[in-house]
Amino acid sequence: MAVADNIRQMMTRSSWIRRMFEAGAELKAQHGADKVCDFSLGNPNLMPPPEFRETLIRLARDDMPMKHSYMPNAGYPAVRGAVADYIREEYGIGLKPDNVIMTCGAGGGLNVILKTMLNPGDKMLVSTPCFVEYRFYVENHGGTLEFVPGKQDFDLDVEALEESIDARTAGIIINSPNNPSGRVYPEETIRELCAMLERKSSRLGKAVYLVSDEPYRRIVFDGNKVPSLFKFYDNTIIVTSFSKDLSIPGERIGWLAVHPQADDGANLINGCILCNRILGYVNAPALMQRAVADLLRITIDVGEYQYKRDKLYKSLQHMGYEVRKPEGAFYLFPQAPGGDDLAFVDMLRQELILAVPGRGFALPGYFRLAYCVDDEIIERSLAGFSRAIKKIPAA
Amino acid sequence: MAVADNIRQMMTRSSWIRRMFEAGAELKAQHGADKVCDFSLGNPNLMPPPEFRETLIRLARDDMPMKHSYMPNAGYPAVRGAVADYIREEYGIGLKPDNVIMTCGAGGGLNVILKTMLNPGDKMLVSTPCFVEYRFYVENHGGTLEFVPGKQDFDLDVEALEESIDARTAGIIINSPNNPSGRVYPEETIRELCAMLERKSSRLGKAVYLVSDEPYRRIVFDGNKVPSLFKFYDNTIIVTSFSKDLSIPGERIGWLAVHPQADDGANLINGCILCNRILGYVNAPALMQRAVADLLRITIDVGEYQYKRDKLYKSLQHMGYEVRKPEGAFYLFPQAPGGDDLAFVDMLRQELILAVPGRGFALPGYFRLAYCVDDEIIERSLAGFSRAIKKIPAA
Repeated sequence: MAVADNIRQMMTRSSWIRRMFEAGAELKAQHGADKVCDFSLGNPNLMPPPEFRETLIRLARDDMPMKHSYMPNAGYPAVRGAVADYIREEYGIGLKPDNVIMTCGAGGGLNVILKTMLNPGDKMLVSTPCFVEYRFYVENHGGTLEFVPGKQDFDLDVEALEESIDARTAGIIINSPNNPSGRVYPEETIRELCAMLERKSSRLGKAVYLVSDEPYRRIVFDGNKVPSLFKFYDNTIIVTSFSKDLSIPGERIGWLAVHPQADDGANLINGCILCNRILGYVNAPALMQRAVADLLRITIDVGEYQYKRDKLYKSLQHMGYEVRKPEGAFYLFPQAPGGDDLAFVDMLRQELILAVPGRGFALPGYFRLAYCVDDEIIERSLAGFSRAIKKIPAA
Repeated sequence: MAVADNIRQMMTRSSWIRRMFEAGAELKAQHGADKVCDFSLGNPNLMPPPEFRETLIRLARDDMPMKHSYMPNAGYPAVRGAVADYIREEYGIGLKPDNVIMTCGAGGGLNVILKTMLNPGDKMLVSTPCFVEYRFYVENHGGTLEFVPGKQDFDLDVEALEESIDARTAGIIINSPNNPSGRVYPEETIRELCAMLERKSSRLGKAVYLVSDEPYRRIVFDGNKVPSLFKFYDNTIIVTSFSKDLSIPGERIGWLAVHPQADDGANLINGCILCNRILGYVNAPALMQRAVADLLRITIDVGEYQYKRDKLYKSLQHMGYEVRKPEGAFYLFPQAPGGDDLAFVDMLRQELILAVPGRGFALPGYFRLAYCVDDEIIERSLAGFSRAIKKIPAA
């Protein structure tokens, strides 16, 4: 048996998103890719902003020495400095370059901070629905992830989180705008959460950390703004990537920042630098570090995603789907008509529409639509969505 | 305490190479970078081949859609195919694209295969001297790494390896050309090793895998050739990167290939694809995947490294250093005059020469010189090397 027992188990309970991705590939082979409406994967359809291409061409041409060489494991000092400046502006707190590490995307950053923090048996909490890769990330480093149900409107249930915190709780992962619900947790909830964490930490005599996964931070609609956790809670670590801002998820580039007043903060950063090295990331890709440093205030046209959200949201609502209008990200998370997410996703598949069942996000009874697709696909899908819901007998 | 106990311990026993790197930075700040001869880090001084720059410019200009998007976790099918073709040529065995995974460098590839293979308490073996990051990589995934002393001439001691294999041994890591010794294990040794592994596997009733870390494969001198492990042992996994071939270690791009006849091979590959995803690598960087696919048969001018080896080797030998002439890589691994590697490395530092003590490679009494530096640095260092050895009383 070449494969470790735990990996063998994981191979069977592997991600719904990817499973759908593969089922989708089959469907496309069968019916033609242009016939299938694929809402299964959060793979942004927008081209990177023109500034990204220009920057890349400029950097590719540059013939400075040691351009693709190793640099310190935390990243280029100048790039860390540029990110620190950006954080000062965007999050409203002063921060040194030393508090920032460049990472291989947010997936890399999350693994780095979790390996740094978790002792065997430690627990992390997350509110559902959520991105279930978190479970793998926590288990990779000997921890366990506890799912805490969120509220009906997908907001955090701070009381429920409070009740779940015990001596073995290392921290809470939050993700706003949320994948899959698109929910931006309101500032009031964030204040409540942070006050609760202060209280709990002081009662337990140890910091309960807040790990905030923010790849969708700048993809918000209708003038919404994601509150800065750094302003409300010192024991916060922010992890993010440029995957969605710049439409470059394949390039694996992001950063991690530890609040300058975090408990044991210097050790935490140094631990993260060590883990970035020993997990085999070694450093974030060199060329992409330099590219993003020049593009920290650039983003794709969020208006395009807002247009898609409005189009799909209004259409589904009009057809009778129960769906909450999300404030950000590029996902809709409607209730599955009839209540069974697996059955309904299967009905959609018969209409050549690919979606992911809610149980893939620890919340059965819903389904996720990643609407970061061409407008034409949204248009073409509407008849299928309409037929599918009509097949469900009214409750 | 924010930092996990094991990470806190590792932070104190962290890498000698990096420690020297930091001590070097201090020395440079004090005396000026141009005064210090830095042989501490294997950070190639050669520029990438011109074809790399041309390819990068071409790819940066290309405005194909989804160019920086997610692709399957194993990498682009076309890139995996190109690597499979290359392996067929270079290693002399037929291989499908399915047997190849694109990885975030060799560090990423090693973590992926080790996470896939290791059950808690499993053991990996490695011959010393060796790259000690392997210990972290194995421990990351619940295993233990056992150091097995190599021979006086840095060849593998196959008998000693055989004696160390037991029921908990998952595999052996080998690295040829070797970091730090530059040793290329001769084909005779490889045949002996593989025969031993066949024998042991059949006695134990389970495969003992060979994990071959080959980033220096094409950096060999005097017409040497690294034997193809794939030809001698089915249960082989090859992990490598383009860091040294193309002088791009900061870009984190490499591949992993499982022998098509490996025991449980399909599961092994699928496990690796899962682990590439859940360890947070997600996929190897997109742009670099496409770049290297076009450059699989291109390498920096190995003659330049051979010139540096000859220059430094002959000079040190002439001064009275005991040093073996390496067949490959870009390291010399001389005995520390006086026998104490820490003391001698400190004496070199007084001469503004940075080296890494042998205990950083699990072999005290030696020191490593990474001669992938400008010729001028080698020239300038010679007087210091000469003064240092003269301070040691003759035995």
